[in-house]
Amino acid sequence: MRTTLRQGFYVVTIFCGLILTSNIARAADSLPSWAEGKTKQSIMDFVAAVTTQGSPNFVPVTDRIAVFDNDGTLWAEQPLYFQFIFAIDRIKALAPQHPEWKTQEPFASVLKGDVKSALAGGEPAIVQLLAPAQSGMTTDEFEQTVRDWLATARHPTTKRLYTEMVYQPMLELLAYMRANGFKTFIVSGGGADFMRVFTERVYGIPPEQVVGSTGKVSFEWRDGKPVLMKLSAIQFVDDGPGKPVGIHQFIAQRPIAAFGNSDGDLEMLQWTFTGPGKSFCLYVHHDDAVREWAYDRNSSIGRLDKGLDQAAAHGWTVVSMKNDWKTIFPEVPATPAVTPQSSIPK
Amino acid sequence: MRTTLRQGFYVVTIFCGLILTSNIARAADSLPSWAEGKTKQSIMDFVAAVTTQGSPNFVPVTDRIAVFDNDGTLWAEQPLYFQFIFAIDRIKALAPQHPEWKTQEPFASVLKGDVKSALAGGEPAIVQLLAPAQSGMTTDEFEQTVRDWLATARHPTTKRLYTEMVYQPMLELLAYMRANGFKTFIVSGGGADFMRVFTERVYGIPPEQVVGSTGKVSFEWRDGKPVLMKLSAIQFVDDGPGKPVGIHQFIAQRPIAAFGNSDGDLEMLQWTFTGPGKSFCLYVHHDDAVREWAYDRNSSIGRLDKGLDQAAAHGWTVVSMKNDWKTIFPEVPATPAVTPQSSIPK
Repeated sequence: MRTTLRQGFYVVTIFCGLILTSNIARAADSLPSWAEGKTKQSIMDFVAAVTTQGSPNFVPVTDRIAVFDNDGTLWAEQPLYFQFIFAIDRIKALAPQHPEWKTQEPFASVLKGDVKSALAGGEPAIVQLLAPAQSGMTTDEFEQTVRDWLATARHPTTKRLYTEMVYQPMLELLAYMRANGFKTFIVSGGGADFMRVFTERVYGIPPEQVVGSTGKVSFEWRDGKPVLMKLSAIQFVDDGPGKPVGIHQFIAQRPIAAFGNSDGDLEMLQWTFTGPGKSFCLYVHHDDAVREWAYDRNSSIGRLDKGLDQAAAHGWTVVSMKNDWKTIFPEVPATPAVTPQSSIPK
Repeated sequence: MRTTLRQGFYVVTIFCGLILTSNIARAADSLPSWAEGKTKQSIMDFVAAVTTQGSPNFVPVTDRIAVFDNDGTLWAEQPLYFQFIFAIDRIKALAPQHPEWKTQEPFASVLKGDVKSALAGGEPAIVQLLAPAQSGMTTDEFEQTVRDWLATARHPTTKRLYTEMVYQPMLELLAYMRANGFKTFIVSGGGADFMRVFTERVYGIPPEQVVGSTGKVSFEWRDGKPVLMKLSAIQFVDDGPGKPVGIHQFIAQRPIAAFGNSDGDLEMLQWTFTGPGKSFCLYVHHDDAVREWAYDRNSSIGRLDKGLDQAAAHGWTVVSMKNDWKTIFPEVPATPAVTPQSSIPK
C-alpha cells in the first residue's frame, strides 16, 4: 500500500506538472495565425519577461492587466463603425412609427439610403442618429435589440455576421494573454452596453471587464417593478484622453499591455507605456486593401497618424495586417477561439 | 505498470475529489462568528440552493454576483463616515498652507474642533470640506495620502486603526461567498478611489470590483509624463437609486445577492430582489449599543427606516448584530480572513 501511495503521489505530481507546463508548451503554437517574425516575437518576448519567476521584469498575476480597443483592433470598423450601422438599421426599423422622419434631417437622408448626406451635419447629426437606437428604452430591451441585430444583420460587402468580422489573430492573442495570467479588458470608444451583449461569447471577456462610452441611466418603477431606463444624455466618453480616465474609473489599475489601432487609442498607450515597470504597446496597422481595408493617416474612421509617429519614436510594436497576419477573419461559420462560459445574464 | 497507472488514476481522482468536496465540508464552520440560528441558516440555505447542480435554483458561476455596501455593512460608520474623518484630518494637516481657513467657514469650525458647526451648512459645507482631501492632486498622490492615513490614524473611541473596524462576521461571509463561486463586489456611496486603497488587502476585493462615487478626473501632462488629476467636480454618485445604476454601468450583471445596512442601499436590494431567479437580500441592523452602536430609523448616518419595513414585507434577512454576531471586530492586531494577493499597484 505504501508503494502504491508513493507511486500515486508521483502520478499526481506528474499530472500537476503537465498542467503547469502545458501553457508554456502551448505558447509556440498558440498564435497560429501570426506569421513568424519580429512582431509575433515581440509579443512572446514581453509575455515571457513578465511571467518568468525570478526575471527582473516579473509581474504578479494580479497586476497583469491588458487593455484592448475594440473597433479596428478586435473587429473591423469599415465602412462605418458597426454600432453606427446598427443605429441606422434601427432608424429604418422604427421609421413606420415616426412618419415625421420622412422630412426631418438627418433621418430623411438615412431613409433615402443617403448616409453620407445624413452625416454632413457633423457631431449634432451623429448624436441625433444614435439616439433612437440607444435611448428611451430599458437596458433589458436595448440588450434584446442588439442581440437580435447581431444574430441577423450582415456586413454590406463581406455578407458576414458582424461577430464574424472579428480578427482571428486577436482572438488567439486574447486567449494567449489569459493563458499567461493576464486579465483582459476592452477599453473602447464604443458603447459599453452595446459591446457587453457579445464580448463574453465572442472574445471571452465578461461584461464587467468592458469599459466603453456610457449614456446616463435612471432607476424607475414600471408596473410595480424597477427598471433601468437608458436616457439620451451622455455620462462618459471613453475615447482619446478619456481612455486613461476610463481605465482609472473602471479598472483602477494601470495596464502593462495596451492594444489599439488609432489616434483615439494614443493616450491609452502613452499611459501604459509610462507606467513604472516593463510595458507593451501595440498598434494594429490596417494596410491590407485586399483582405480587409487599407487606411491610416487620412482616414475619417480609425485615423492613425500621430500614433504611427509615436510608435516609431518609442519602439512600440506595429502589426502589418498584410504581412504579420496569415488570416484576418475566422472561418465561417465562426469558430471562436474561446469557449463561451455562460450566456450574458438578462 | 498498468496497475500502477490505474492506481495512480484513482489517487488523482480521490485527490481531485478532495479538492471539490472541501468547500462543502468547510461550509459548516466557515462562518464561526455567526451565531447558530435563522439568520446564519438563511445565508447557508441560499448558497446551497444556487450552487447545487441540478437544483431548480442552480446559478452558473459566472452569474453568481454578490454586492456589498461598505460603510455600516463591511466596516463601522460612527461617529462619522470614516472617509469624512479622513477629510477633516487632511484639513488639519493642510491648514498651515491655508491661513485663510482660520476665518473661512466651514474650515474655521473644523480647525476649532467643532465639526458639528462645520456641518451645519449642510450639503454645500460637506462638499467644501471634502474638496481639499480629494481634489487638486494626482490619483497616485491621493492614493499615497490615504495609505498613510490608514496606517496611522485611529478611531476616536476604540483607538483602533480604521481597517481594524471591519466586521469579522462579514469578512467570513465574503470568503464564504467566494469559496462558493461568487464574485464579490463593493457597491458603496463612498469614494471609489478611497476604498480601492484598502479593499484588496482587507476584504480580498480587487480594485476593479469596487463601485463607488467618483469625481471627474482629467488626463494631463506634467514634466513630460502623463498624470491623472483629481478634479472637484462630481462624476457619479453611487447612492440610493444610483446604486442599481452603478451596478449596471460598472458590473453590467444583475446581482443575485445584496448586503446593506441603510435606506441608501434600498434600491440596490430592490433591484436584486426583483431579478428573474432566486435572490438573497440582507440588512445589517445596528442594534448593539454595547459592542458597537445602536441606530436605525432616526439616525443621520446610516438611517434604516424604509428598509426595515421593506425587509419585513419581503422576507429579507435582517442581522441583529447583538444576537447574530458572536464577535463584531477582528482581534487586534487584525488578522484578515483573506490573504492579500498582491499590493495595490501604483
